[in-house]
Amino acid sequence: MPELSGVVNFIGEVEKVKGDISTIVIYPQYAQGLNGVDAYKWLYVLYWLHKGDNPERRATLMVVPRRHGATEKRGVFSTHSPHRPNPIGLTTAELVKVDGNHLTVRGLDAFEGSPIVDIKPEEHN
Amino acid sequence: MPELSGVVNFIGEVEKVKGDISTIVIYPQYAQGLNGVDAYKWLYVLYWLHKGDNPERRATLMVVPRRHGATEKRGVFSTHSPHRPNPIGLTTAELVKVDGNHLTVRGLDAFEGSPIVDIKPEEHN
Repeated sequence: MPELSGVVNFIGEVEKVKGDISTIVIYPQYAQGLNGVDAYKWLYVLYWLHKGDNPERRATLMVVPRRHGATEKRGVFSTHSPHRPNPIGLTTAELVKVDGNHLTVRGLDAFEGSPIVDIKPEEHN
Repeated sequence: MPELSGVVNFIGEVEKVKGDISTIVIYPQYAQGLNGVDAYKWLYVLYWLHKGDNPERRATLMVVPRRHGATEKRGVFSTHSPHRPNPIGLTTAELVKVDGNHLTVRGLDAFEGSPIVDIKPEEHN
């Protein structure tokens, strides 16, 4: 019998969004994990779609995606819709600055207050 | 007070790995979400690093990454190490085939049996 679920512990949050620039704070107990991040230009930022975490949204399997000018429903796994079984968002964001446990990035598609789940270097930088 | 954790429900698993080709099964109750996925060549596959989910590994903030020929410790958020606060793996995999609720992909860096957390189209396909 395989496991059916797992728990993620949030490592930080989106502190401020202004235009296409966002500031992320990584909680102090996780800040050591940022060592070396400044060597990368592009980061994968995984965040929690906290405004979308309810049973109805998690049960959504078909959506009309807001991107692409689509008008017909598509499966959620062919979209970045926040309505999906697991409310994890993923953006490839440009790293602008690292200042202690604060990251400034460009292009993060997350609301202020969104919990951060993980940060990884984008593979091809 | 912000939320501190969230629950992910696994949507499928890595069924078989042979060389650089992997087969993923999406559980039948989530299979409708695959509608339209076959339009994409590259997919983000988020999976659970199930062999690495224990408190010690989650407490790891510095590692010597196995890639890049590094010899010094770096922060886990500058690596794809499976030892990290949240055991979520992320690979950009090439979609080879969709057959009902089975996906065949190339280049997925996940063990057989790894639970699947999410699938999204890679942004630039």
